[in-house]
Amino acid sequence: MAGYVFGVDIGGTSIKFGLFRTDGTVLDKWEVKTRTQNNGCEILPDVARSVQQKMKEKELSKEDVAGLGIGVPGPVIAEREVLAAVNLFWGHKKVAEELEELLGIPIKVGNDANVAALGEMWKGGGKGTKNLIMVTLGTGVGGGIIVDGKIVTGAHGAGGEIGHAAMEPELAEACNCGNHGCLEQFTSATGLVRLARQELARTKEKTVLNPDRISAKDVLDAYKEGDSTAVRVVDDFARYLGNALAIFACVVDPEIFVIGGGVSKAGQPLIDAIRKFYKRFAFAACKETPLAQAELGNDAGIYGAAKLALE
Amino acid sequence: MAGYVFGVDIGGTSIKFGLFRTDGTVLDKWEVKTRTQNNGCEILPDVARSVQQKMKEKELSKEDVAGLGIGVPGPVIAEREVLAAVNLFWGHKKVAEELEELLGIPIKVGNDANVAALGEMWKGGGKGTKNLIMVTLGTGVGGGIIVDGKIVTGAHGAGGEIGHAAMEPELAEACNCGNHGCLEQFTSATGLVRLARQELARTKEKTVLNPDRISAKDVLDAYKEGDSTAVRVVDDFARYLGNALAIFACVVDPEIFVIGGGVSKAGQPLIDAIRKFYKRFAFAACKETPLAQAELGNDAGIYGAAKLALE
Repeated sequence: MAGYVFGVDIGGTSIKFGLFRTDGTVLDKWEVKTRTQNNGCEILPDVARSVQQKMKEKELSKEDVAGLGIGVPGPVIAEREVLAAVNLFWGHKKVAEELEELLGIPIKVGNDANVAALGEMWKGGGKGTKNLIMVTLGTGVGGGIIVDGKIVTGAHGAGGEIGHAAMEPELAEACNCGNHGCLEQFTSATGLVRLARQELARTKEKTVLNPDRISAKDVLDAYKEGDSTAVRVVDDFARYLGNALAIFACVVDPEIFVIGGGVSKAGQPLIDAIRKFYKRFAFAACKETPLAQAELGNDAGIYGAAKLALE
Repeated sequence: MAGYVFGVDIGGTSIKFGLFRTDGTVLDKWEVKTRTQNNGCEILPDVARSVQQKMKEKELSKEDVAGLGIGVPGPVIAEREVLAAVNLFWGHKKVAEELEELLGIPIKVGNDANVAALGEMWKGGGKGTKNLIMVTLGTGVGGGIIVDGKIVTGAHGAGGEIGHAAMEPELAEACNCGNHGCLEQFTSATGLVRLARQELARTKEKTVLNPDRISAKDVLDAYKEGDSTAVRVVDDFARYLGNALAIFACVVDPEIFVIGGGVSKAGQPLIDAIRKFYKRFAFAACKETPLAQAELGNDAGIYGAAKLALE
């Protein structure tokens, strides 16, 4: 019986691999560099080569492997094809078909943020649930929606693209996506710095924050020290995110929100700030929905990819 | 083989029934009064009696009936139990269990707005799709989310409670739910009148609208006549709804939005106004998602309930 499964997470700089038992026990993890030259045509052959090497090393036959799941940074349809992945220099690509030909094992493909959500559901902050919203607060804001244990991919692969929820469409400044007032303009690392700069321009209060050199970490550190300017900035950040989560809860009413990404490293104080606003804005039936920290960090993708392959 | 299915829609004043072939052909429709006395304890026996009568009349045995689906105005869990239904004077009620005992056929239960969404997917404005958001613009704003052909019920039965999305949480006026700035405070029939009153207080322009006697229909009729005050009011209404739909699309990315309810009777001009704002605010991949009018009117519930029973 096939007792093993691979989870692969393709990023713009590295490809992460995990070999798991089908119960989710991780046996091995490794990475290779992402070779993006020639429109990323080496990427899938590199994946296949690395997996074959590992199978040889561990003396695994194809029959031992239940499948391979793969997360890619772009919209995915039918768990097989990628519409485009800018960071890999890919256009439309039949990822599952190509890899199945190279490896001879069943392949499933998911968007990287969605797959990370599935990983957190399986073995991370959302363990034991089947309905969750994962929010990744990084340079941008990513997300993944899980309903009844399955990724909500959406009709155009845009399920879970919560970073582009139009929270304040009259905002003058544009988002990278071309729209205005997207959630990630407020609640990403970049957004937090933007909110801090605005507040610094407004306030005359003494603060440890320096407008000329400011990072998301600076703001969050100052917040934890009780710097009153930083407290107002993080409150603002938490209000935007709490409001967005309250709206999302009216759509899919998850069992739990899982908050990950670099910004979430600020930990419980930040989660508490978000929860305060979430609770204020959420529909009565959903006010007590827990907000949990993500637990798998950068490994969420390989866990989720492996889980995807097992479905 | 069981070739028939019942769809039942329980409202506060009447219970609607439909007898269908399993392919969705409607064979008969009828209603009975909802008897809400004694905490609505007569309602389910009334349903059973009416169904048994119809089976006798049509000479159907239990074996001929694949099941009975039922929509109720309250949150539902596990397709069997109602947490509460204020308009029926019900608290927690094991609807499926009670009716299965009375009728001896398999029962499935859904929230009425969710079930209507399923009906529109099966035989109405969303026919041919499996992923849709239904928006019902009535006295309040209801909704239903269908992902992969199934109702998204949510962890607390609040899936699709889009009328309570916190669009403007700093609004002074409270919603019936106790929160502030819910979508239905802007885009229900009541919300439209509220927006019109605001605009009439602001403007000095000549208008056919009379602030002392104004209904949603008055506003929509004046809009279609090109009354410039009404045009601004409906634009405002459409901006709120377009913005909300754009946010919802970032969550589940539906194939189609289906717009129903009394306000939607204003037809294509209103749909076009909503689409204009939706397109402006939606994430790039979702900008072309169609907005369609609901087609089943008050029958959406019995169709959807029948479909639910067939799953």
